[in-house]
Amino acid sequence: MAVMENIPYNELEIGTSANYRKSLTEEDIVLFAKISGDVNPVHLDDAFARETLFKGRIAHGMWTGSVISAAVATVLPGPGTIYLEQNLQFRRPVRPGDEITVTLTVTGKEDEKRRVSLDCQVVNQKGELVAKGDARVIAPDQKVRLDKPELPAITIG
Amino acid sequence: MAVMENIPYNELEIGTSANYRKSLTEEDIVLFAKISGDVNPVHLDDAFARETLFKGRIAHGMWTGSVISAAVATVLPGPGTIYLEQNLQFRRPVRPGDEITVTLTVTGKEDEKRRVSLDCQVVNQKGELVAKGDARVIAPDQKVRLDKPELPAITIG
Repeated sequence: MAVMENIPYNELEIGTSANYRKSLTEEDIVLFAKISGDVNPVHLDDAFARETLFKGRIAHGMWTGSVISAAVATVLPGPGTIYLEQNLQFRRPVRPGDEITVTLTVTGKEDEKRRVSLDCQVVNQKGELVAKGDARVIAPDQKVRLDKPELPAITIG
Repeated sequence: MAVMENIPYNELEIGTSANYRKSLTEEDIVLFAKISGDVNPVHLDDAFARETLFKGRIAHGMWTGSVISAAVATVLPGPGTIYLEQNLQFRRPVRPGDEITVTLTVTGKEDEKRRVSLDCQVVNQKGELVAKGDARVIAPDQKVRLDKPELPAITIG
């Protein structure tokens, strides 16, 4: 079974960095529409989306935000992190088949409350900037190693 | 079939406001874990989550961000909106069975590029603040009425 391990506050330094990758499928777009309620046809209807300035179906912008949040929660600092703030700028659409890479870098630490600031950069497989922003979290105080739960099968349609 | 209608730039005024509601199910948490990759057991494993400071399973923080994005994309301004920026502060966990209400209020307009700033407040069914933030968007220039696509059935497990 895969394992998640965090980087507790005292192991984080300014400049500590980590990557997290995720590919987007058409199914992910349907699932995002379900959990958010955003059923705009630019995400769901290929014929409609081709007539828009995007020339095809695109992911919901906040899907990229969700992947940033997963990077923070599973990698840097990882399990035990408490998410305080996230600022996001959306720069480019993500399309089914794209793979995005989130790069997180520690830019600030406040010892008293274990607060950590993280620069967040997201690029697609061509290296183009998709989104960027900053996160603020409370980093965990102890090392944690967790088995990654297996998700149940999800069937659409 | 349900219809989505936007509020184009020239109909928006400072103070224009709208609400958007969404309930959280346990299934939504599993789907969010799937599309983001954040499989932390505080979201997925009831026994584990009861031992944490949250005393039970909680939603991923960015699920609330996803619901804010859906409010922007489907209600105010609605279809045709281009999402530029979102700032979020997470204040309180959301649990399965909770219903959150997003309130969006126009706080700024820049005519030249149809840019609109929106205050975003999210409360749970007890009226407690769950998250807050600001969005910046390009509002649509024309009225749009769209049929809301029906999503396919989604089966878990």
